[in-house]
Amino acid sequence: MERVAIIGASMTQFGQREEWIRDLLAEAGIACLDDAGVSPDAVEHLYVSNMASGEFEGQTGVPNALAHDLSAVPAYTARIDQTSSSGGAGVYAAWQSIASGASEMTLLVGGEKMTHRTTAEATDVIASLTHPVEYKHGLTLPSFAGLTARHYLDKYDAPRESLGKVAVKNHRNGVDNPHAQFQKEVDLDTVLESPIVADPLRLYDFCPITDGSAALLLCPESVAREYTDEYAVISGIGGATDTHVVHERADPTTMGGVVNSSEQAYEMADIGPEDVDVAELHDMFTILEFLQSEDLGFFEKGEGWKAVEEGVTDRDGELPINTSGGLKSKGHPLGASGVAQVYESYKQVVGDAGPRQVDAETALACNVGGFGNCVTTTILEGQL
Amino acid sequence: MERVAIIGASMTQFGQREEWIRDLLAEAGIACLDDAGVSPDAVEHLYVSNMASGEFEGQTGVPNALAHDLSAVPAYTARIDQTSSSGGAGVYAAWQSIASGASEMTLLVGGEKMTHRTTAEATDVIASLTHPVEYKHGLTLPSFAGLTARHYLDKYDAPRESLGKVAVKNHRNGVDNPHAQFQKEVDLDTVLESPIVADPLRLYDFCPITDGSAALLLCPESVAREYTDEYAVISGIGGATDTHVVHERADPTTMGGVVNSSEQAYEMADIGPEDVDVAELHDMFTILEFLQSEDLGFFEKGEGWKAVEEGVTDRDGELPINTSGGLKSKGHPLGASGVAQVYESYKQVVGDAGPRQVDAETALACNVGGFGNCVTTTILEGQL
Repeated sequence: MERVAIIGASMTQFGQREEWIRDLLAEAGIACLDDAGVSPDAVEHLYVSNMASGEFEGQTGVPNALAHDLSAVPAYTARIDQTSSSGGAGVYAAWQSIASGASEMTLLVGGEKMTHRTTAEATDVIASLTHPVEYKHGLTLPSFAGLTARHYLDKYDAPRESLGKVAVKNHRNGVDNPHAQFQKEVDLDTVLESPIVADPLRLYDFCPITDGSAALLLCPESVAREYTDEYAVISGIGGATDTHVVHERADPTTMGGVVNSSEQAYEMADIGPEDVDVAELHDMFTILEFLQSEDLGFFEKGEGWKAVEEGVTDRDGELPINTSGGLKSKGHPLGASGVAQVYESYKQVVGDAGPRQVDAETALACNVGGFGNCVTTTILEGQL
Repeated sequence: MERVAIIGASMTQFGQREEWIRDLLAEAGIACLDDAGVSPDAVEHLYVSNMASGEFEGQTGVPNALAHDLSAVPAYTARIDQTSSSGGAGVYAAWQSIASGASEMTLLVGGEKMTHRTTAEATDVIASLTHPVEYKHGLTLPSFAGLTARHYLDKYDAPRESLGKVAVKNHRNGVDNPHAQFQKEVDLDTVLESPIVADPLRLYDFCPITDGSAALLLCPESVAREYTDEYAVISGIGGATDTHVVHERADPTTMGGVVNSSEQAYEMADIGPEDVDVAELHDMFTILEFLQSEDLGFFEKGEGWKAVEEGVTDRDGELPINTSGGLKSKGHPLGASGVAQVYESYKQVVGDAGPRQVDAETALACNVGGFGNCVTTTILEGQL
């Protein structure tokens, strides 16, 4: 089977934006085509990753409008929704479109417009969509995160400070990302003294509410060099669900979807976790970076916090995690986030990450929907 | 590339249902697995086709819940939305999942719950999602249909009665479909004397508002015979958009998405329109059956109405169209419709269509989103 190449990528400024979803999607789509030097006429499939533009803005049905806005008609379009992992699901759909031979040029654009809603409203919408059962009992995603963090700290005898250090690291990385919502450092005291949201987690343990979009252009590897000398291949990709109801999970500190989706991706790429040079993890809450770094096999179970303490995941560490700043400082526009994770991975493996650049041939991106309900894992290898 | 087989199919009773979207989807999903004799454990990818459960019910994020309800966790899930062609887009996504090698067993379930909303409310939601530009000026999909019908009748000198005969034919076919919303004949006078909705179209020129779901089970053809002696292959499939704004189309009686998507499907199947034995067309409005039967190449442009007048598209005609009763009498639960079209096509080519059975080796299904904004065409061949 022919491998799938990424030949262009873009992301917009993340943060509080004036534009609505349709314009945000068009901005990233145009920038991505420009990045690759490809005409919209060449686009055969156009996918939109978006979680909740209906709930947030009262407007869905945007893929056909985007085909118009990009002058990409008659490209085939569809919207891919997998709650907060819609972006990763979009990457998987775009990959499938090329790998199946259905398309020879696929543009994926992920985006979300959220900041016109309050944090409480957005949190409410997200929980009602991802956890309708537990939502009725008052649980939201931050609640799950607090309960899980408490469990993790107790079970693995980890200090509260280690969670704070995830936020400090990712904010430090975000300083060098011109697209990040927060381009400023925070110190550990600021994190540890910020207001409690879901004990033991505090405000700075959480990602913000964000507007933004990101895009990728994919084609068969056999034609990639017609467009560029430097591209990435998606050498591995996989997706999996975990139980819909969180309390049914045997171990709340393990995300089965991360384990299963990464096993698929490693097998396809014919590598193991020890071969990954840099990773973008779904740090919607600081605790999630620990869970994923363990469930992906980077560290033993219960040891992820030590890696952060020891600087292993710093930009100059052995396995840099979230060089982009992560969802924590870059922001988390739901449908865009999984696409933006692959944008950063692409930039790293083609050597175009600027001041964030690390030494990386292989990058991994892990995008989590709900509270681990559905996960996609994508592995990229640079071809220079 | 390996061909993709359909080894099981189901559809629920269409009509006014008490169940909500989650239960409707589970009903079709369970019935489809039962039909194929496949355990939910074997499902690797699970796709949900749904247009607007958020707008209609305030609940999206259903794929993960469905994985739970079917005991299919850790199957990968995603929701595919392409407005009223979400079902066809789901078929395309499911096909890609198998053809790309990402999955060896994919369950697609399409569904919609609509009848708790009034026809006016549902029509308003649909137009606001599919045609946000023209919607602001008061146009809905029935408006487009009326304008197009008037144009067609004038341009091709077709009698108003020919449109009514589409409704009469499809209602007659629906009598033999136990899942159809309306299992009763209507005579031409009833159609022609029903209340005007969008002149010249009257109530009986329109499909109803419907609840329901349908499902398909797909796997690589190489393993299909492990499950069944009679299956279908998706020998051709394609998708395409037309202009987002309807008034930008050069000829309002041609649907570019139908032309482009069917050209892709014919090319993949290595057949032409003359090789199709039976077809399910998207007769949301009677006029659409004329347009599609011409744009698919079955009849010359402007001649589709004559085929209906002459009985060519009757069940005992040369090219039976909408043996299921079509959207017109079977009903049109948006996200389910494209899946149910392929359900009928599958039943016809494996010889399991009961009293609706025609002599068919090759079947075609054409699913239209919006007013031709995005279209998928699927060709099935029976393997007995």
